[in-house]
Amino acid sequence: MATIRLIEEADATGEVARVYEDIKRAFALSSVPNLFKAMGQHPDYLAATWARIKAVMGPGRLERRTKEIIALAVSATNGCGYCVHAHTAALRRLGMGDPEIAETMAVVDLFNGLNRFAEGLQIEPDLK
Amino acid sequence: MATIRLIEEADATGEVARVYEDIKRAFALSSVPNLFKAMGQHPDYLAATWARIKAVMGPGRLERRTKEIIALAVSATNGCGYCVHAHTAALRRLGMGDPEIAETMAVVDLFNGLNRFAEGLQIEPDLK
Amino acid sequence: MATIRLIEEADATGEVARVYEDIKRAFALSSVPNLFKAMGQHPDYLAATWARIKAVMGPGRLERRTKEIIALAVSATNGCGYCVHAHTAALRRLGMGDPEIAETMAVVDLFNGLNRFAEGLQIEPDLK
Amino acid sequence: MATIRLIEEADATGEVARVYEDIKRAFALSSVPNLFKAMGQHPDYLAATWARIKAVMGPGRLERRTKEIIALAVSATNGCGYCVHAHTAALRRLGMGDPEIAETMAVVDLFNGLNRFAEGLQIEPDLK
Amino acid sequence: MATIRLIEEADATGEVARVYEDIKRAFALSSVPNLFKAMGQHPDYLAATWARIKAVMGPGRLERRTKEIIALAVSATNGCGYCVHAHTAALRRLGMGDPEIAETMAVVDLFNGLNRFAEGLQIEPDLK
Amino acid sequence: MATIRLIEEADATGEVARVYEDIKRAFALSSVPNLFKAMGQHPDYLAATWARIKAVMGPGRLERRTKEIIALAVSATNGCGYCVHAHTAALRRLGMGDPEIAETMAVVDLFNGLNRFAEGLQIEPDLK
Repeated sequence: MATIRLIEEADATGEVARVYEDIKRAFALSSVPNLFKAMGQHPDYLAATWARIKAVMGPGRLERRTKEIIALAVSATNGCGYCVHAHTAALRRLGMGDPEIAETMAVVDLFNGLNRFAEGLQIEPDLK
Repeated sequence: MATIRLIEEADATGEVARVYEDIKRAFALSSVPNLFKAMGQHPDYLAATWARIKAVMGPGRLERRTKEIIALAVSATNGCGYCVHAHTAALRRLGMGDPEIAETMAVVDLFNGLNRFAEGLQIEPDLK
Repeated sequence: MATIRLIEEADATGEVARVYEDIKRAFALSSVPNLFKAMGQHPDYLAATWARIKAVMGPGRLERRTKEIIALAVSATNGCGYCVHAHTAALRRLGMGDPEIAETMAVVDLFNGLNRFAEGLQIEPDLK
Repeated sequence: MATIRLIEEADATGEVARVYEDIKRAFALSSVPNLFKAMGQHPDYLAATWARIKAVMGPGRLERRTKEIIALAVSATNGCGYCVHAHTAALRRLGMGDPEIAETMAVVDLFNGLNRFAEGLQIEPDLK
Repeated sequence: MATIRLIEEADATGEVARVYEDIKRAFALSSVPNLFKAMGQHPDYLAATWARIKAVMGPGRLERRTKEIIALAVSATNGCGYCVHAHTAALRRLGMGDPEIAETMAVVDLFNGLNRFAEGLQIEPDLK
Repeated sequence: MATIRLIEEADATGEVARVYEDIKRAFALSSVPNLFKAMGQHPDYLAATWARIKAVMGPGRLERRTKEIIALAVSATNGCGYCVHAHTAALRRLGMGDPEIAETMAVVDLFNGLNRFAEGLQIEPDLK
């Protein structure tokens, strides 16, 4: 169980309720994810975070699928279980299957390893 | 300076020299990157690592560009300067410019932050 | 379950028993937390760690509450579930409620993100 | 040098120029920090990030000084040099001296260590 | 449950089946660990990873036990539960008991803490 | 340059001076390392940390060399340049050369990678 009380949809009012509706519409979800319900404890942060998610994940120069792959790679590197589940689910909705997810993790494995080899020997940049 | 002596191309023999040649050919580079010159101290590891890089970064279900973006996202998350420089350079060779790199980092920023919010409140997975 | 056997209070003798008593008194707890029971496997380390906790968390220039907030921020950044629970509980005993804990995590989120943006672009310090 | 070109104040227009002015005013700085000049490559992200910084770092239930201490603790844990310099400078402007900064780092040291001890033995939460 | 389907031994064919057999023989296990069953989704990566594990963990200048201790220290630092369990089990098979594992974690605790103190104050190397 | 003033040996008095002498004697160094000079800003923390270093790194069930290898592996995983230099130097004084250090980093690389693969797919422990 989360360490703070989540603000459930039934208890949300004002700005929080408005953002909750926008989140469900944007992700085509029938309920608000727990992550955002925790943000409901701090309405200004919830609103600013949601506005930023839309700015970052909205149309740009990278495809939405590529952005979700980055999100999964970051979540795996940080070992965040909640986030791994959420972004894997998002990638499945975008058409990725087990082999693509496994291939993503193979790349994550490879460079997490090489990163530490480079750091552990303090190798100087030569590819700029 | 690196903490161990790099094995320079002029000093490489046998397996190490063979892998060095393959690396230069594969990446179309005129010299072997420092990272691999450090691996030259442990020939079996160099050979096995290079074989694995080819297996992971070679043709598959994800595009090469997507794999390099993952590599950059992981390197940023780990704060590895050598690796950030190397993968940024690789992405530039694949046609990415400053706006695409900045957009990649915006996504990296977003989810590194949200990962820790989720962990710091022990929020339970609901999007499986 | 922990990967090693915890040394229960009933089985503690000598230095370990003495430190256990001091821990319960200092934190006003009725039982020794699991973390310290694991340290019971290495009595010298337990004693030196406990002495250091007292030196670091005792009266100084920062308030006790601020120190516990740092502890929670660090634990969230590292994704340590045990520690997140322990420091959230400590902050509640010091009077913090859900909104304060959520606000702490908003700050943790913000700077974990910006840290990686700065690292991922190798931005040079200009604010010294 | 950063891996992407920073958008200098002289080259900033529209939204970017407007946010740059607001940043200088809010922090009472004579020039825009490099971090934000890098964000200038992605105007929507810059604007949304700045709005969020104001929402998170503005008046709330935690003091501004406490929030900057969290920022420094997170930056130390992530090993971000740019961020360590920036938040140390901010704390000095808020009146903190070497002993307070050293004390902050003593707490950061303590719990980064204990976090990994808890994780490395998979100790179960008992302080909820 | 894992986010992708594991390739069970009964479903493995060709290269995957061959590597699975080699893994069981090398570790003297009666079944293939889940980690490798997930790799079964990407046969080339599984084969290259297994070859590399043999190159890195096989006879060299460091003892096998020392290598497993490194593996446990790294897994604790990254907070990977699966890996902590796997390497603790491996160390027990090599004769380590609770006191040795606790002593390993005491060292892991110590240097994870000091690492962040050094980073948080940007202390310059003087011991080269 | 460090973000706080180091307490030089010439300026150390009382407890700080006493610990500085003990550090030089214990490590057979002609000057106090920068890390400890920074701790000089917080005498109680310096003394408690030094006592703990002696308790953890002193004679026990693991060899001193193994403990320094753990320290290097942890420092590489955290990307702490100061610490990588310090522990590499310590290992050289204990007789390790470039091939042993490279082999250590090969193991660090391997498991940092596999850790993230396991986390990124949320693979469940089966080797307890």
